[in-house]
Order: sequence, then structure tokens, then C-alpha cells
Amino acid sequence: MKIGVDVMGGDFAPDVVIEGAVDSLQHLSAADELVLIGDEKSILGKLNDLNIEPSHFRIVPTTQVIEMGDAPAKAFSQKPDSSIAVGYRLLRLKGIDGFCSAGNTGAMLVGATYNVAVIPGVLRPALATILPAIDGRNSVILDVGLNPDTKPEVLVQYGILGSLFARYVLEISNPRVRLLNIGEEESKGTPAVKAAYDLMKNNPSINFEGNIEANSLFREAMADVIVCDGFVGNVMLKQTEAFYHIYKERNLKDSFFDRLDFESIGGTPVVGINANVVIGHGISKRKAIMNMILQTWAVVHVNLAQKIREAI
Amino acid sequence: MKIGVDVMGGDFAPDVVIEGAVDSLQHLSAADELVLIGDEKSILGKLNDLNIEPSHFRIVPTTQVIEMGDAPAKAFSQKPDSSIAVGYRLLRLKGIDGFCSAGNTGAMLVGATYNVAVIPGVLRPALATILPAIDGRNSVILDVGLNPDTKPEVLVQYGILGSLFARYVLEISNPRVRLLNIGEEESKGTPAVKAAYDLMKNNPSINFEGNIEANSLFREAMADVIVCDGFVGNVMLKQTEAFYHIYKERNLKDSFFDRLDFESIGGTPVVGINANVVIGHGISKRKAIMNMILQTWAVVHVNLAQKIREAI
Repeated sequence: MKIGVDVMGGDFAPDVVIEGAVDSLQHLSAADELVLIGDEKSILGKLNDLNIEPSHFRIVPTTQVIEMGDAPAKAFSQKPDSSIAVGYRLLRLKGIDGFCSAGNTGAMLVGATYNVAVIPGVLRPALATILPAIDGRNSVILDVGLNPDTKPEVLVQYGILGSLFARYVLEISNPRVRLLNIGEEESKGTPAVKAAYDLMKNNPSINFEGNIEANSLFREAMADVIVCDGFVGNVMLKQTEAFYHIYKERNLKDSFFDRLDFESIGGTPVVGINANVVIGHGISKRKAIMNMILQTWAVVHVNLAQKIREAI
Repeated sequence: MKIGVDVMGGDFAPDVVIEGAVDSLQHLSAADELVLIGDEKSILGKLNDLNIEPSHFRIVPTTQVIEMGDAPAKAFSQKPDSSIAVGYRLLRLKGIDGFCSAGNTGAMLVGATYNVAVIPGVLRPALATILPAIDGRNSVILDVGLNPDTKPEVLVQYGILGSLFARYVLEISNPRVRLLNIGEEESKGTPAVKAAYDLMKNNPSINFEGNIEANSLFREAMADVIVCDGFVGNVMLKQTEAFYHIYKERNLKDSFFDRLDFESIGGTPVVGINANVVIGHGISKRKAIMNMILQTWAVVHVNLAQKIREAI
């Protein structure tokens, strides 16, 4: 597997990205190749500091950087030799099997949608992330921020995309799907959510188990796949981040709360596009970068994009 | 102040409601009167068990109970002598200054909207609840569940209703209002949220400070008033409940997480209607009931409904 890593992306790039890439090596096999995309001098200098042979990696030198503040849509034409633009080009040309970056999220999403095309039949791609439960299991929730305002048919398809994610990445057979709602009853929610409930109930591709309320999130026997629009999912994810930060600030110690750390999860795959792309948090440090790379490996390993293409 | 309490409402009624009412007495003054609405025999029996003189209360006997499973809209005509129907009748006739119940939420909302009218000029009433912050302060968030799908003008008015709540109940002068969104930038969010941003920015009745992301909730210097639609607010509130439960189950100890307990908050005022009504959680026990009553007192004490009527 060839995993492309945007060395220039993220608040602490390039140093922490290179450190995270070095750390991830021990979890990968000899058949895997990490492709570091970015400023060659910085990469070689940092590897030298770390006493790591550059031959452990393939280095693709670039000369430009899409900064956090750059306008995503213009970034690709203005900075064709940026690490993100080059990464997407490599992905399209099959020079890499997956690509990850903790850089400009907007630019990563523009690249995901325009440089890599949406899979035919997919109405809207989504950002999927993993939610830990107190019983040790994981589930997947989508969308966590790509489409804030979502039609019922799109929510239904998230159920299918999420089921494929759960089956192949989390290895859950016949994953149970629930719709995040403000009550358990079918009659609850916005018109879009109510219509989605009706459609999901009657869709044979979805093992639909009804609504889930947010007080059941993170609990035992919660769903394997949780479907919501990108606005609600993004609020949910960021609220989790708020609680995790307070937990850390107040020096509490607990194995469940530790699992809420985004650094352990690493990144958010974009599902529904023709390639395997994972977006990391801008504030990622060494450990988060390593996990972003390993999550990209996990998605590439099962070729989630291909599985979705076959199923849709 | 005359506070009406639905003795028959909640999963553990009537016993815990009477216990909570007894506990609240010590926080009220001689000028306050608690009006216990419900089955007289149960009330007198329980007060006798607790060695409390019935003369501490006014008792309004009722013969019917709106159960948790009853259809809210039909409940009033089918059970005119239920504690909820009688409570709303007393409220309308000014026999009480405020009314609270941990009973059938749907019936309480039907009563709030139909038995007590919406204040002229209020587009949609809302459920407002208090969010604690780690710096010890409280803010108010609305709507947390009354209207799942909300137009921009309604969100703007929540900003005004929430400001009145913050000013009079939380005693915050010139409260800072923020819109819960998925990014800080003005261009983020659903069309409704974007339109609300534009309207709030230009509304002189709102001290608008822009968007707030959910990772800033509960933090220092967060907003005094947080505006969102009832779907997002309900998910946020229930997710908080999920974390609080996990915190308790795992025997963690922390003064901030303790404040997330709904039992300490007690109930959710309905704002925008012509009377002071507070809805408690169905699973309320003794302490939660006491705090629901005290919160009703707080809303009645400043006559929030009257303040809103004057301001709108």
C-alpha cells in the first residue's frame, strides 16, 4: 500500500508530520510505502535530526504550501505545486493508494470533490468518524461536517455508506443503523429526518433499527452506524472535543474518556469519492499524525472507495 | 409567589414530588406559597409520613392523571380534572403565578401553547436551559427541543428571548449572544443559520458576538446566550446527559462535571408564553424536583413572562 502524506499540512507542520510518519513505520509492513509530499530540504533535515534513513520513505518534493487561511477553491490553480495539489494529482494517477493531510480542510474537501470525482450514484460524499462506546466497541457516525443541510435521500445513503464503512473498516457484519433524532418515536424530528426514517425503514440495504437519541451515544449496545446531517454531526463531534478538553484540564483519569481523544482516532475519512482520503485535525501533533496515517492505511487496506463503488 | 406543582407528574410521582416540595420549603420565604396539585389522599398520607404539617402548603385536589403515554393533544379534553389540566387552569385564572411538572412533556407543551397563549409578537416559544461553564458561570441555551425546524427570524427572536432570560434570571447585564454553528466564519452553516447571522448582526436588541462552535461550549468566556434550533439544542442537551451518566458510572469526581447533573438544574422553562411554566425531566427524583420548584420560583420572582411581554 502506498500512503501519501501531506508533510506541509497542519499547525505544527512539517516537523510533527515527519515525526508522526516515522512513528507509524513500526505499525506498517515492508509491503507498505509512505510517500512524504512536501519541502524536500525540511524532510531530509528532520529525518537527519531523528537519525532516520530517508530510504524508509519515498519523498515527493513540492515547492508551494496551501496555508490554513488560503481560499480553498482558488488554492489549486494558484498553487499547483503545493503538497495538497500534488497529493491529489498522485492519487488520481494511482501513484498513491490513499492520501491524508492535517492541512487546510476546505482545500482537502475541494480536492476530494473536484480532483477526485464523486462516485457515480453517490448523492453527496460525507465525513465519517469513529465514536467510541463504553463497552469498548466503536461505531461510525456520518456526516460530521461536509453537508450542513441534507435531504432525506442523502441521509438514507449515508446509512448505506456508513454500513459499508462499518463492515469493511470496523469489521462488523450486518451493522445496525440508527438515525440520530430528538426522540425514539417515528414521528419525531424535522421533516427531512422524518422522511429519512420512512425511507430507511423500507430500504433492504440498511439494517435499520430506528432512531437514537443523543443520550444513548457512547453507551453500550448503541448503533454501529449513526446517521445525521453534517450540521448536527459537527456539533456532536465538537461538543465531544469540549468535554475531552475539560476532562484533561481537570486531570481526571479514565480509560473511556481517554478514547475520546481525537489524537487516538487520528482523522476523518471522506466517504463517497473515488479514492481513499483522510482529513486530520489542524492541531494534530505527533501521535495524531501517526494515527491519521494508520487510519488512512486501514481505509486503503480494505479499499473502501472501491467497495463503495461496487455497492452503489 | 404562588408556585403550582404537579404532584402526579414524573416517573416517581407522587412520592418524590412531595418530598422535593418539602425540601424546597426551606429555600422559600413566608410570602411564598407552594400549591400542590394532585391526589389529596396521597399528598396527605405522604406529608404525614414525613411529619410535615399540611398547612405548609395549599392543596388542590384532582382526580385524574395524564400518564406518560397519553396523547398530549387529547389529554386535556379527556382528563379535565388531571393535575396538568387543573394546573394550567389555575395559571390562567391567576390562582398560581407559575406552574411546574415532571410529567408528560407533550401535554405540558400543549398546555403551554394552547391553555396559556403565546405572547403576541412571539413567533415560536422555546425551551431554554442553563449550561454551566468551567469558570463557574452559567449561560442559557435555546431552543432545546420545542421546534426542531426553525426559520431565521425565529432564531433571531430566540436571541432576544434568551437575552431577556439572561438579564432577568441570570442577572447578566448586556448578555453576549452567539449562534451555535459549525464554524466561526459568517459563511458557515445551513441557509437558515446563515440568514439568522445576517439578521442578528443588524439587530440592535441583540448584543451579537457571532458564531460559537460546540468545542467552545462549557468553556470560559463562552457566550451568555446560545441560540440554536430545537433539533441541535436537544441533541446537545442529551449528549451532555450521556457524558454526565458515563462520568457517574465510572465514579469520577469533579466539581464541574457535577454541575452537568440535570438534578441540580431541575427544569426547563418555556419562554415566549403568557405565563411562567417549567418542565422537569420525567426521571426526576427528590433533588431534581426541589430544583425544578426553585427554578420556577426564580422565573416567577422576576416574572419573566411579563418581562418578555413588555419587551416584544
